[in-house]
Amino acid sequence: MAVYTEINPEELVAFVALYDIGDVLWAKGIEEGIENSNYLLKTTTGLFVLTLYEKRVKASDLPFFLGLKEHLAAKGIACPIPLRSQEGHIFHYLCSRPAAIVTFLNGMCPRSIKEYHCAQLGATLAQLHLAGSDFAMNRSNDLSINSWRLLLAESISSGDIFEPGLGSELEDEIIFLEKNWPKELPYGVIHADLFPDNVFFRYGKITGLIDFYFACKDMLAYDIAVCLNAWCFDLDGRFDVAKSQRMLTAYTDIRPFSVAEKVAMPILARGAAIRFLLTRLYDWLHTPPDALVRKKDPLEYREKLRFHQLVNGPADYGFY
Amino acid sequence: MAVYTEINPEELVAFVALYDIGDVLWAKGIEEGIENSNYLLKTTTGLFVLTLYEKRVKASDLPFFLGLKEHLAAKGIACPIPLRSQEGHIFHYLCSRPAAIVTFLNGMCPRSIKEYHCAQLGATLAQLHLAGSDFAMNRSNDLSINSWRLLLAESISSGDIFEPGLGSELEDEIIFLEKNWPKELPYGVIHADLFPDNVFFRYGKITGLIDFYFACKDMLAYDIAVCLNAWCFDLDGRFDVAKSQRMLTAYTDIRPFSVAEKVAMPILARGAAIRFLLTRLYDWLHTPPDALVRKKDPLEYREKLRFHQLVNGPADYGFY
Repeated sequence: MAVYTEINPEELVAFVALYDIGDVLWAKGIEEGIENSNYLLKTTTGLFVLTLYEKRVKASDLPFFLGLKEHLAAKGIACPIPLRSQEGHIFHYLCSRPAAIVTFLNGMCPRSIKEYHCAQLGATLAQLHLAGSDFAMNRSNDLSINSWRLLLAESISSGDIFEPGLGSELEDEIIFLEKNWPKELPYGVIHADLFPDNVFFRYGKITGLIDFYFACKDMLAYDIAVCLNAWCFDLDGRFDVAKSQRMLTAYTDIRPFSVAEKVAMPILARGAAIRFLLTRLYDWLHTPPDALVRKKDPLEYREKLRFHQLVNGPADYGFY
Repeated sequence: MAVYTEINPEELVAFVALYDIGDVLWAKGIEEGIENSNYLLKTTTGLFVLTLYEKRVKASDLPFFLGLKEHLAAKGIACPIPLRSQEGHIFHYLCSRPAAIVTFLNGMCPRSIKEYHCAQLGATLAQLHLAGSDFAMNRSNDLSINSWRLLLAESISSGDIFEPGLGSELEDEIIFLEKNWPKELPYGVIHADLFPDNVFFRYGKITGLIDFYFACKDMLAYDIAVCLNAWCFDLDGRFDVAKSQRMLTAYTDIRPFSVAEKVAMPILARGAAIRFLLTRLYDWLHTPPDALVRKKDPLEYREKLRFHQLVNGPADYGFY
């Protein structure tokens, strides 16, 4: 959510000359996506987004992230399309960082989530899962269940300073999830971070998905579990089943859930809640006070976790 | 340098409908100017900048700031032109904040200052001073000499924690400046904050000046003193007289300096240095650690102040 690197205009002009997109008119640092430096870039041929990858994104993962967007766009998913340079590369280096140029998407993130947003999201997510089914590259989900003990260990001592009892509550939950985590569900490309910040709308329709820097291969239903957490709780913390029902129904119209996926949803939703709780806790405790990053409240996700711990079954999400 | 307010798309659409500029396509938070929320705004008729004024800018000052840009633009100075709404107002309210829409300027801020930047700047500043000569509204410089004792008082106790001896060094300097501050110099509209961040270039020419939120009426030569500090020191802190000479010569070609202005320049430069030293010190000590603001080093300006204390006279700036 912040720009870190300041680009010298002369360096920018030389970088853009690697591509066949005309001359630079201007570039503006924008607040978008995770901790990369993002610039809106206007050239004589159009508008683009330039991303400099800061340390959170590994250069070795870029062929997956950028190749996936290229693959999905070719299948009709609205997402930023990485440009290839005149040499054919999908990224180059700028200011000593890997850097890529992608196409610009119209639309704006919703700030107040309505049911129609959730319906649109469900349909688009199902299309993404189908479009990703023949993407050949692999990347495992390095923020799934195998990472949680380590993440907790790196926060637990200070986690209890943050909120007394939080450490042991999370430890108990991880033990439960390790025993009950599903294994045989339909598997493929997932976005894994499809928060409202990463979805653009215009006139009530989705115009694009961005920020594929947690995308990986994992259980498809886990992607839905992330979205239930991110889209279906009201600002006061109440779960809004009307929203989740619209999301699940729209998804099912395009890719029907298996019975096993429905049954697993409460566990997956608990897992998705603990994943964001743990990374937010980690970021809260490890972000230097002068970093230009808006820190997100970990405890929002403890409330969501507690909701999922108490559901009676998939019907509570609006499955029928 | 940071976006504070998140705008709901529905509120934005209603706000933009007050103007005759078509429908919203998108808006992106950009990092620009002082502590306001700035958005690049694309509508069906073009590209604009939307600013929400956060607490640092007083609503009562907006008619001056926005009226000045309107006045200067009408005289041919390249600056953002505030749009008037269909009701004729120069600002309205959005998210409970005063908000204005201005035209977009091409170009980029220079990151590495060259002599030709300084020459361009000198000429443009002289044009601005001439264009402002018949601007009727008034605003005094509330960060000039009368404010410095108060600013120091609000930082002095912690100022010595910041750097031992800094408080008394600044107090001595303020006493000196109060005794020697010039009074009868040519007076008019000044920008008062014309740092490289606020000047756009393209192909080596200035395409626009932005961020008029310290603009006021004061001695014209003080504006030059601000620019000597902001543009003519190298990254290693060395004063580059070749740059200042280009700036002063280009200025003189359009508005010649009086003898009194030349003689006063070392004092004005000391004043400009202490003004930014004091506000940076204040910001350093009073900005909450979680604010999305990049804090600037006050001590950079102590080094500049010490340079000006030691100059032999105006010739050291390249006046001849």
